[in-house]
Amino acid sequence: MKRLGILLSGRGSNFQAIADNIAAGRLDAEIAIVISNRPEAPGLEIARERGLPAISIPSKGLEREPYDRLLLAGLDERRVELVCLAGYMRLLSAAFLRAYPLRVLNIHPSLLPAFPGLDAQHQALEHGVKYSGCTVHFVDEHLDAGPILLQAVVPVLEDDTVESLSARILKEEHRTYTEAIRIVLEGRYRIEGRRVIRW
Amino acid sequence: MKRLGILLSGRGSNFQAIADNIAAGRLDAEIAIVISNRPEAPGLEIARERGLPAISIPSKGLEREPYDRLLLAGLDERRVELVCLAGYMRLLSAAFLRAYPLRVLNIHPSLLPAFPGLDAQHQALEHGVKYSGCTVHFVDEHLDAGPILLQAVVPVLEDDTVESLSARILKEEHRTYTEAIRIVLEGRYRIEGRRVIRW
Repeated sequence: MKRLGILLSGRGSNFQAIADNIAAGRLDAEIAIVISNRPEAPGLEIARERGLPAISIPSKGLEREPYDRLLLAGLDERRVELVCLAGYMRLLSAAFLRAYPLRVLNIHPSLLPAFPGLDAQHQALEHGVKYSGCTVHFVDEHLDAGPILLQAVVPVLEDDTVESLSARILKEEHRTYTEAIRIVLEGRYRIEGRRVIRW
Repeated sequence: MKRLGILLSGRGSNFQAIADNIAAGRLDAEIAIVISNRPEAPGLEIARERGLPAISIPSKGLEREPYDRLLLAGLDERRVELVCLAGYMRLLSAAFLRAYPLRVLNIHPSLLPAFPGLDAQHQALEHGVKYSGCTVHFVDEHLDAGPILLQAVVPVLEDDTVESLSARILKEEHRTYTEAIRIVLEGRYRIEGRRVIRW
């Protein structure tokens, strides 16, 4: 059984969807550890209620590299094979990424490269795009960059608010993230340049 | 009958689609003039073969503002009400845009704001996105910016080349541009910030 490590900073809605899909037999993996950089993240309590190991490694006041060494120790101890970011609000260091080459995934609520960063759904609405969606990508040292594994598209409706658009995208996030994890765990892809080709 | 002015620099494939849709009764408008800034643009000959008025106003060696005054004179003479760019490879000046406020449209072969500028399909392939498409937008002084009227989405396939992806997008361009022109001519929209809301 492949061992996932989840990093989060808040509720970790995508973490919950992954856990649901594992519980329902839709994803052949287990969550080996949930780590939050913020002790007060609701995702930690949610993990514990589900009987999953969950720890806080507070990042406050720590530089990126020393903090990432703590993170790596936590993941290594649990023999994590694939790291899934679920609303983890920090960039990862090059040293961290060297320890998990092409083994860190993130999901972002826009059709990247459009609208990276915070409040992607708000950005999309303000820009007036007619379609948005979500992107699962391999993580590199840059914000919401890295080779794209999967995307899903949703329409932006004329009367959308940030809330209604976010809800529509979130539904696709929950489906898409699990599918992307499955592709990576099964090794059904190759990377050419920054194109991820599936087979 | 609403009078369209077409600006192009090459073949103007989207111009031909507009002309086809007018001829087929799918768009209630007429092409009052086709203007190219390049005398050798194939679109000029294609227009003449269709019996449409077509002129060359060479831009070579002219600064933007003086050139745009020549363009405006050509459009005014033909009493053009809506200007449609169809592969017109120059930015328009503020003075031009003041003369046609919210009356200049462009189509771009990507889901803007992703991949503005040249070779958008190549950019999309290289970036490794899983969906691309086209965007019809009101033109402002910036490259491929301005409020978005319509977009259409196509998948990017694993074995796509620039040619195959471009062909898939082009089919959507031909449909989408005509629909956007219809919306503008019928006045069935309002603009809030940079969102174009249709009704």
